[in-house]
Amino acid sequence: MKLDKLVGDRFKEKPADCVIDSHALMLRGGYMKSVANGIYSSYLPLRRITHKIEEIIREEMDAIDGQEVQFPVVMPASLWQESGRYESVGSELLRFTDRNGGAYVLGMTHEEAAVHLVREYGQTYQKYPFMIYQIQTKFRDEGRPRAGLIRVREFTMKDAYSFHTSQADLEQYYDRCHKAYERIFARAGIPEVISVASDSGMMGGSISHEFMLLTPVGEDSIVICNECDYRANMEAAECIVHNDRDEVSEELGLVHTPDIHTIEDVCNFLHSPKEKSCKAVVYQKKADDSFVVLFIRGDLDVNETKLTNYLGAEVYPAVITEECGLHAGYTGPVNLKVNAPYVVLYDRSLQGANNLSCGGNQEEYHYVGLDMTRDLPNAEYHDFAKVVEGGVCPHCGKHSVTISRGIEVGNIFQLGTKYTKAMNMTYLDSEGKTQNPIMGCYGIGVGRLAASVCEAHHDAYGPIWPMSIAPWQVHICAMRADNAEVRAFADSLYDTLQKAGVEVMYDDRSVSAGVMFSDADLLGVPVRVIASPRNLKDGCCEIVTRDKSISMKVPCEEAAEKVRELVAELLAKNNAD
Amino acid sequence: MKLDKLVGDRFKEKPADCVIDSHALMLRGGYMKSVANGIYSSYLPLRRITHKIEEIIREEMDAIDGQEVQFPVVMPASLWQESGRYESVGSELLRFTDRNGGAYVLGMTHEEAAVHLVREYGQTYQKYPFMIYQIQTKFRDEGRPRAGLIRVREFTMKDAYSFHTSQADLEQYYDRCHKAYERIFARAGIPEVISVASDSGMMGGSISHEFMLLTPVGEDSIVICNECDYRANMEAAECIVHNDRDEVSEELGLVHTPDIHTIEDVCNFLHSPKEKSCKAVVYQKKADDSFVVLFIRGDLDVNETKLTNYLGAEVYPAVITEECGLHAGYTGPVNLKVNAPYVVLYDRSLQGANNLSCGGNQEEYHYVGLDMTRDLPNAEYHDFAKVVEGGVCPHCGKHSVTISRGIEVGNIFQLGTKYTKAMNMTYLDSEGKTQNPIMGCYGIGVGRLAASVCEAHHDAYGPIWPMSIAPWQVHICAMRADNAEVRAFADSLYDTLQKAGVEVMYDDRSVSAGVMFSDADLLGVPVRVIASPRNLKDGCCEIVTRDKSISMKVPCEEAAEKVRELVAELLAKNNAD
Repeated sequence: MKLDKLVGDRFKEKPADCVIDSHALMLRGGYMKSVANGIYSSYLPLRRITHKIEEIIREEMDAIDGQEVQFPVVMPASLWQESGRYESVGSELLRFTDRNGGAYVLGMTHEEAAVHLVREYGQTYQKYPFMIYQIQTKFRDEGRPRAGLIRVREFTMKDAYSFHTSQADLEQYYDRCHKAYERIFARAGIPEVISVASDSGMMGGSISHEFMLLTPVGEDSIVICNECDYRANMEAAECIVHNDRDEVSEELGLVHTPDIHTIEDVCNFLHSPKEKSCKAVVYQKKADDSFVVLFIRGDLDVNETKLTNYLGAEVYPAVITEECGLHAGYTGPVNLKVNAPYVVLYDRSLQGANNLSCGGNQEEYHYVGLDMTRDLPNAEYHDFAKVVEGGVCPHCGKHSVTISRGIEVGNIFQLGTKYTKAMNMTYLDSEGKTQNPIMGCYGIGVGRLAASVCEAHHDAYGPIWPMSIAPWQVHICAMRADNAEVRAFADSLYDTLQKAGVEVMYDDRSVSAGVMFSDADLLGVPVRVIASPRNLKDGCCEIVTRDKSISMKVPCEEAAEKVRELVAELLAKNNAD
Repeated sequence: MKLDKLVGDRFKEKPADCVIDSHALMLRGGYMKSVANGIYSSYLPLRRITHKIEEIIREEMDAIDGQEVQFPVVMPASLWQESGRYESVGSELLRFTDRNGGAYVLGMTHEEAAVHLVREYGQTYQKYPFMIYQIQTKFRDEGRPRAGLIRVREFTMKDAYSFHTSQADLEQYYDRCHKAYERIFARAGIPEVISVASDSGMMGGSISHEFMLLTPVGEDSIVICNECDYRANMEAAECIVHNDRDEVSEELGLVHTPDIHTIEDVCNFLHSPKEKSCKAVVYQKKADDSFVVLFIRGDLDVNETKLTNYLGAEVYPAVITEECGLHAGYTGPVNLKVNAPYVVLYDRSLQGANNLSCGGNQEEYHYVGLDMTRDLPNAEYHDFAKVVEGGVCPHCGKHSVTISRGIEVGNIFQLGTKYTKAMNMTYLDSEGKTQNPIMGCYGIGVGRLAASVCEAHHDAYGPIWPMSIAPWQVHICAMRADNAEVRAFADSLYDTLQKAGVEVMYDDRSVSAGVMFSDADLLGVPVRVIASPRNLKDGCCEIVTRDKSISMKVPCEEAAEKVRELVAELLAKNNAD
């Protein structure tokens, strides 16, 4: 198509609210427009990109025996009540009533709908295994949408659900799907995506992986071992701590610590390192506001995902008032009193430690000389801590952990029987016994994947789209289209390439070279052909790639063939990656 | 793929709640499953059909210079407030609030979103005309979903929006789109679809057309002239009535009519035809409950769409209580009193009539001898009546009108500047003057189109899908797949056809011929190959088409080639129609 007909504006200025490059470039390049917080409309270039991504996903899902289906966006609450998630999921699940007062939700994931669709079908073991998937709009009422298409409220997602009669069969399929995901990301132009162990969160189930594009602007923290192949999301990464216990345990004693509230203050005041302090972090449960007092070594932070998983309940940072009996900044495990229901938890980082400081449970006093073993003999220890850079790898045991940032571009879960049990989906096994099928589920966000590719492949001037998902394959710049020779050559090339099935964007506007090239840069089409009066004098045109790796002068009569070769080559490269 | 792996059940029994065949067949054939009232999930066969329909639509929209975009399903109420439709549209617009209390709607149509997307882009006349479209999920909170995919609450729709600088340019594009629609329906296998003039309803604008598949089970009534090319939806069709005025007007007089309430009763009692009565139909406005008393000739019915359009307000059948002053069954235009705000309207069918009966505005009395001209000299007449079979064609004036039923499979509207004015979208014309662009909009429901094709093309055993949208192109039935020869031939044919890019469903189950054929009938694949021990003995297989028009024995070695030819032929036929 011709660029002067492309609906959407391109502009130079970086919009003020963009924190990552892909967001800014996709607004500046006329890819999308914000409609509401976390809700976008797409223009043609983005729709073409997402359409190609959808086709890649479809091919790879079909190749692992997936059957495409479609679930509704709007689902009756009753379906989510069957699984228990109507109550258990927070306000990110959008609930509403229809004209007759019926309760409904907007689909943010479709495990319930999947079980609903197949529970009559899958009544005998011979029907298994099978996998169904859809590519469909979802809505998740995010509290903090951000970063353009990376974290939105409305999005297009491929979600797949597999059903099995044994854990072994699920694991085998899970591996097949893992490989299909690697192919999808490679074909979409980001073979560098890695998979990491993850927390299953609200999905339930045990083993799960996230596919991560490592980038400093990612939202997730990824724990990576430099010595072995251990990789996990911070939320799921086990924290290993070795405590050096002092030979002599001091006596427990109170110290007057006026105006001292933070761990930093206490440790400075006492001239002891943070590793020698016992920090209190206080939460309340969302369900009943009861208190959760968690003690952890002073240099470490709480991983709230681990805490939530351990409790099986959502928490929020406690509101400490006079009535509750706690003293903010002075809470410790010895002589702790709370005037309300509460639980006390201990992180493993404290296990066996001695000569620690901790809150005195009264204003302006701290204890010193705390010996966990001696003073709190009944304490039980669990892993609640965030892994730190340079920490111990839970896999190989070396101090070899680094922490990177990543964007999650896909995830796969072994769900087990959580949904089939709750929703009473059963089959008769080969011995005539009633069983619940075992499920896996597999997601990829289409728009987020597009934005991630842009994040991974761009320069200051615009995206550098891989051939496989580029909105167009070739971009013809006719410099001075008022020149008859330029016009004739460019028109003919446009025509020839289109007839050959090449997707061509043709810029024949009367604009300056600067405007022409900056628009081409923003559209990020991989192959560019420049026809100018100067080159045509030599019977040549220029062919350059958006990533600058190729730049050549080609005789005009060879241009179409050369372009076709280049397109085919770059496409093959994406598919081979 | 192999039929024994296809997720979904096929069954014989017609589900109880199905009023039309396509609904029953699509449930019986494992095409879809109900999730809630008017909300369905689709299995693979239907998803493949809708995917093909979507691709046909996409090609035809691209061919008329459409640019595919995507609007959100969830839109902020503010966008609909800009156009005024947040208030004016009824409860079919689903309104809800998000987690922060923000007001949102579920998109049932996207004029507002379209204007929002392009109002910065379209600021100068050089950018025009342009058309954007999307294929996306919509939700319309129907009061009475029915007939399977014909009237649902959640559906996939192609909606397109064009923008112009003159009415002439809109009309030219409207015609192009009209032709594109004809191609779409022809390619989808229903070239018999006709276009009819329609009422623009809540969309606003003036000229509009609906594309109708004529079928006795259709929801819409279509007025068709047998003498000229006049075709209109009943809602929009003008009603022409010629009254024969009696030479002598009788005197107006009251008659005692005890226990007589209906027009039938009155006319029987007075021994006069219904054409000689003046019927009152009473409504109240939804907005303020004020009364609307409409008088119409006794043999005609009120077209409520015309009434609503005239009033510019929604109405409901009046609740007549003692307080309001009206007497149910005895309401007439002479000495009418209503103890509440009200308007009186007269249908054109009464204009000039005399010697009519009408209600006496008191219990148990009617007037006779009513002369509209003499007794109600100030009455204004408008067209509020429903066209009747055998009525007068408003185009050629002959008594040649027939009424058919139809399913609306698409619609196109000339919207004018309703949305661009309301939402303040402007451009500078060639003389530097500020103007509002003129819009058109164009819709096709994808699922409804699939169901309509099924409705038009099925038999008692299942759908007869056209090759262009069939879920698979070829269905191989291996009768007695345990027979080595059958297995070898069918496996090899399956393999050969798949490698040739033919879409094959392969049934190699050990089931009876009856089960095998009834399943094949329900899947409705256009070309069927039957391999049986008996035929193979003669070195042959059978090739039959689902519509029974072709049935032949073909030597095994020619089967693959013959099937490919047949597929290509049938595909070409759909594209040529």
